[in-house]
Amino acid sequence: MIAASPLIESLVEAFRCLPGVGVKTGQRMAFYLLSRARDNGLKLAKVLEQTMREIGHCNFCRTFCEEEICSICLSKQRDPSVICIVETPADVMAIEQTGIYRGRYFVLMGHLSPLDGIGPHELGIQHFVERLRNESIQEIVIATNPTIEGEATAHYIADLVKSHAISVTRIAHGVPLGGELESIDGNTLARAFSGRVAISLDNDE
Amino acid sequence: MIAASPLIESLVEAFRCLPGVGVKTGQRMAFYLLSRARDNGLKLAKVLEQTMREIGHCNFCRTFCEEEICSICLSKQRDPSVICIVETPADVMAIEQTGIYRGRYFVLMGHLSPLDGIGPHELGIQHFVERLRNESIQEIVIATNPTIEGEATAHYIADLVKSHAISVTRIAHGVPLGGELESIDGNTLARAFSGRVAISLDNDE
Repeated sequence: MIAASPLIESLVEAFRCLPGVGVKTGQRMAFYLLSRARDNGLKLAKVLEQTMREIGHCNFCRTFCEEEICSICLSKQRDPSVICIVETPADVMAIEQTGIYRGRYFVLMGHLSPLDGIGPHELGIQHFVERLRNESIQEIVIATNPTIEGEATAHYIADLVKSHAISVTRIAHGVPLGGELESIDGNTLARAFSGRVAISLDNDE
Repeated sequence: MIAASPLIESLVEAFRCLPGVGVKTGQRMAFYLLSRARDNGLKLAKVLEQTMREIGHCNFCRTFCEEEICSICLSKQRDPSVICIVETPADVMAIEQTGIYRGRYFVLMGHLSPLDGIGPHELGIQHFVERLRNESIQEIVIATNPTIEGEATAHYIADLVKSHAISVTRIAHGVPLGGELESIDGNTLARAFSGRVAISLDNDE
């Protein structure tokens, strides 16, 4: 019993369920909260329990949400004619943080992976098809990850939307801003070449 | 509302009370638990609440403990004639992990710091003096931190024990094992020189 307390040992063990937290970090968290921030610890415990119990999925976009419909789907500020398709709620958050996108979302909660038994039904594609029929949508922006599964999922969805009179786009892939060309991996560089675009010069020159 | 859910925002905010956790890590923790480990999240919430509420201090050594007396003070395996003085329960854990020490502890829960109003009373020195009187102690090992405050606290305690017929020792300070001399700071190197010891050669050579 290294901590001289079975309860503290259990807490350190419980902290290890968090990504990136091992024994050392768990110990530091436990002793920090006990010594200096018990109120914050109690608050974290309460919010954590509530979140684990109450968070479900938005009925429209399937993102994590404690209400029937999430605040993005409810918002009158968002353009209802554009839907961006992402794999996870974390992707929604990443896109929202850029502030560049003003349409709505559809969250797959994963990607096609037949070997793991994840097909269109598991990704809620039937709900998506329903939205295609019921809403007046003009563009679908596919922002699945640039992985083999993400690309396969993107193709599947593009194929599905083809029969409707809706344009389908894919977010651009290439050299990230601030990156140095020599340190970019070959696949990304190849993609940047095959996806090259004409330079548009302003005609006031 | 970037997460499309006020509850998830609160959870991310609550995670930030943990040392070393910022917004990005908090988001990763929240989404990880929600997507893949809700049971672990609930368990963490429960253990965390219980720990924050139930952990007090051992009546003997003052370390964190949910019982009246901690398992180290209760253990019959420990040498009752040696007491090691440390600043925090985390120090106890660090020493226990080495497995080198078999005596008991006294945890100051801090160090002397007159400007912050932390004097001998706040460090529970009266309990320590009581133990000096009531127990048959032969050695006090002082393992406070090698900082200005830790050294001052060590001197204060050494002075206090002087009147009893008990030997007082300080753990050794110097170049850490595996460290390279050229990368050690000057104070540590100076301490290593002033604290040099004679090399003992085995007489079977």
